[in-house]
Amino acid sequence: MAVRNVLFIMCDQLRWDHLGCNGHPRLATPNIDALAARGVNFTEAYVQSGICGPSRMSFYTGRYVASHGATHNRVPLSVGEVTLGWHLREAGLALALAGKTHMLPDAHGMRRLALDGQHDLAALLREGWFTLVDRHDGHHAEPDSAYAHWLRAQGYDSPDPWTDHVIAVTDRDGSVKSGWKMRHARLPARVREEHSETAYTTDQALRFIEAQGERPWVLHLSYVKPHWPYVAPAPYHAIYAPEDALPVRRHPAERGNAAHPILREFQNEEVAQSFQNDACIAAVRPTYMGLIAQIDAHLGRLWALMERLGRWRDTLVIFTSDHGDYLGDHWLGEKELFHDCIQRVPFLLYDPSPAAEATRGTRDSRFVEAIDVAPTILEALGLPPAEHLLEGRSLLALTRGAPEAWREHVVSELDWTFRAARRRVGLPTGQHRGFMVRTARWKYVHWTSGFPPMLYDLEADPDEFHDLGREPALEGVRAEMRERLLDWATNLKCRTTLSWAEAEFRTDRHKAAGVFYGEW
Amino acid sequence: MAVRNVLFIMCDQLRWDHLGCNGHPRLATPNIDALAARGVNFTEAYVQSGICGPSRMSFYTGRYVASHGATHNRVPLSVGEVTLGWHLREAGLALALAGKTHMLPDAHGMRRLALDGQHDLAALLREGWFTLVDRHDGHHAEPDSAYAHWLRAQGYDSPDPWTDHVIAVTDRDGSVKSGWKMRHARLPARVREEHSETAYTTDQALRFIEAQGERPWVLHLSYVKPHWPYVAPAPYHAIYAPEDALPVRRHPAERGNAAHPILREFQNEEVAQSFQNDACIAAVRPTYMGLIAQIDAHLGRLWALMERLGRWRDTLVIFTSDHGDYLGDHWLGEKELFHDCIQRVPFLLYDPSPAAEATRGTRDSRFVEAIDVAPTILEALGLPPAEHLLEGRSLLALTRGAPEAWREHVVSELDWTFRAARRRVGLPTGQHRGFMVRTARWKYVHWTSGFPPMLYDLEADPDEFHDLGREPALEGVRAEMRERLLDWATNLKCRTTLSWAEAEFRTDRHKAAGVFYGEW
Repeated sequence: MAVRNVLFIMCDQLRWDHLGCNGHPRLATPNIDALAARGVNFTEAYVQSGICGPSRMSFYTGRYVASHGATHNRVPLSVGEVTLGWHLREAGLALALAGKTHMLPDAHGMRRLALDGQHDLAALLREGWFTLVDRHDGHHAEPDSAYAHWLRAQGYDSPDPWTDHVIAVTDRDGSVKSGWKMRHARLPARVREEHSETAYTTDQALRFIEAQGERPWVLHLSYVKPHWPYVAPAPYHAIYAPEDALPVRRHPAERGNAAHPILREFQNEEVAQSFQNDACIAAVRPTYMGLIAQIDAHLGRLWALMERLGRWRDTLVIFTSDHGDYLGDHWLGEKELFHDCIQRVPFLLYDPSPAAEATRGTRDSRFVEAIDVAPTILEALGLPPAEHLLEGRSLLALTRGAPEAWREHVVSELDWTFRAARRRVGLPTGQHRGFMVRTARWKYVHWTSGFPPMLYDLEADPDEFHDLGREPALEGVRAEMRERLLDWATNLKCRTTLSWAEAEFRTDRHKAAGVFYGEW
Repeated sequence: MAVRNVLFIMCDQLRWDHLGCNGHPRLATPNIDALAARGVNFTEAYVQSGICGPSRMSFYTGRYVASHGATHNRVPLSVGEVTLGWHLREAGLALALAGKTHMLPDAHGMRRLALDGQHDLAALLREGWFTLVDRHDGHHAEPDSAYAHWLRAQGYDSPDPWTDHVIAVTDRDGSVKSGWKMRHARLPARVREEHSETAYTTDQALRFIEAQGERPWVLHLSYVKPHWPYVAPAPYHAIYAPEDALPVRRHPAERGNAAHPILREFQNEEVAQSFQNDACIAAVRPTYMGLIAQIDAHLGRLWALMERLGRWRDTLVIFTSDHGDYLGDHWLGEKELFHDCIQRVPFLLYDPSPAAEATRGTRDSRFVEAIDVAPTILEALGLPPAEHLLEGRSLLALTRGAPEAWREHVVSELDWTFRAARRRVGLPTGQHRGFMVRTARWKYVHWTSGFPPMLYDLEADPDEFHDLGREPALEGVRAEMRERLLDWATNLKCRTTLSWAEAEFRTDRHKAAGVFYGEW
């Protein structure tokens, strides 16, 4: 049967190595593993930026960060860019959202074009062409959100039930503490499990899918977890212990004056200093695992509904994450830099087509990028590929076993202008960027603003402890990686206003247009 | 006195070396030379693309082609991009146009945003934020243009007076011939000089400036000449002879199998083949010179009005061109490729400020780029620099003698997807690009789509006859040029939705925004 629906599931800040099917020895994710068994587990999938906003804009636009321009969480997506939602709208479909997008409206652009105010499109543009089932971005108080209203209706009597219940915890002495403080991560949330963010967002998705009946749909189910605040409702706050966690990956070689100056400054940020405390790692990692187990349990509810409605026959399912989490690795917390624990994400693809039978349950180690999601969905639905805009490639060529030449590296970017680290190294405002090129063996990071590059030999040093960016003997490798980066940069798709068919039509057409230059 | 008005004059397809003040031995341009004597003659000024559309969009946006995305004449400027006209509008001013812009409306973008139809901004968006005094793009019939109507009112009785009179010529036997055929270039146009394009466009500018009175204005006076069709009205068709022309710069080393495949294919285009005929060069070059002399004469009228109105006291004047013309050099006609006769343009800047007294009448060989025009105008008028968008630099730092570190190379780009040459080398539609990096000594051209680079040693070979792109001994030079290109590409300004002040404000501000991640 042809693909008729798409379920595009994203977790927030979920590391690649925190799934049973990706080898975590203690974390049980039976439902996610079941999806892997139905489809293809792409084990080398990378995001286009190691931070929510730009990574998501790459998922949604199918374009690299340098192309869509929303380089950081605090940067709106230009009104000149379009997302998958617009491509679907062109075909009479909608891109429904339950959960988080991190979309910021381009207020200047909308004002410039008089698209603010009461304009028909204003709501769609503010949401980046998503149609809301329910939006819940998490990570900050949203006291007027639908979720907050719903919580109050469930009896959480507070002007800000997210702060006071969802991310607040109850201490052993009965006192209430803030979940912002990571020392409280092992205490239970002041919200019942069925009222937590993960449960609520799943409920929205279940209701949407059921209500659609036999009408086709494309749903982005976008969990805000296991992202901080690291607070889980009972029983998930307590099902894992510190000894269940993966070993911390950090090395003395990464510290001090030998370290790259940007790495060193990130290690000096508050969140990194907190995670340099082993007690913080011991508090956070089990709860992070519990939050993943909770998502897995709710996906079990979703799979059951899919089964009951017969949706496995006609629904393409993607499961991924927008980036990982340091959790103390490399003496860091949070994200943004280019280590694999940030850039590599889970990526499961279930393709219901009979053409995909041969690849079910397989692992595929070819490089996938976040920008592949949009072209995959468009191809699955039989829609035009918009190849003048989309910089990724449809993965159906891989699920349906038509192997061809595939990419040999992935690229990710960072604009660290907005970090305190930028000020501490004395840089003025501007656009201070890093670019990662990762092949099977090497990871190269090019920094602007005068910083030296980084280089890691992933064969000899899979944990990325030893920066060879200034190792004289490896200048040949670095030069080769810069060639890859130059090739990438000079092939970005900047010509967004004409389709390729239109470009073909306009080729060598001056005489048909009444322009007869060059005739003797 | 402070700068209050701006007169931004552009010629179309005017080579750098076709001005008296730039050393042409026979072509007299006394009025242009007088402007050079009043201001600074920037002798190393380069465009961002060697073809009208993308070059102009770089002048108007202040951004490289890779940033504004209008990569070729047939590519609209995205509705997400803004021009100098928008920056002026923000300050309550308008960017008036008399003549050509080559602006193509972004029909898809305007439809997507429901900005077509009767929307208030539709007219401005279609014109790229220019306010029309009169638009006349030339090069093709515009039978419903204001110019065509005016011509009919002057008695040119034709549904298409441009084709039948402006670019038609009268042969010696009295018969009418088309000016599209270059063999007719030395015959006079069937239009009186005072009704020709150059005269008409000058009239529009004179009327506009006079009507403004003491109200401030910014005018883009944009001549369509000396661009083809190479047809001049009497007496300008006959004031120069073939022996007045510059020697043709071409060399056997540029031809045949030794030539770069892209150069070879451009030499196979019809216009190049025509110019490989010496009779074509002898017919076209004198008329091209006559058209320049005509512009110079009309600029004399403009200078006289400026004098009468006292406008030299408060008006910044820029005189430049959007690119050059091969005219048979390098066995080529037309433009697009990266030789200096295309990329290098005249650039005169008159700054009325007393602070510019010391530089009057001087020549400055520092590198200027087309993208410097918009920031120069904004600074002259005391407006915000929009440094999050503009990639050029204000030249007032040079006219007002505050020399500082300046750029050491210029960059130009080409998207040759739309050329028949692309099909002949067997490339599919896509985005097939070239990037030039030019330092004082070297010119390096990087081609995508698998083509080898070009390299010219401008010290040893100022005429650019010998392509060293595959010379083994010069790989070090090429590598150094690629580093420059990579540095350029990774510093393009893609973050267009936030000003730098906003970026500074949003730096390290998560706690003020109620987000307390990272606290132990």
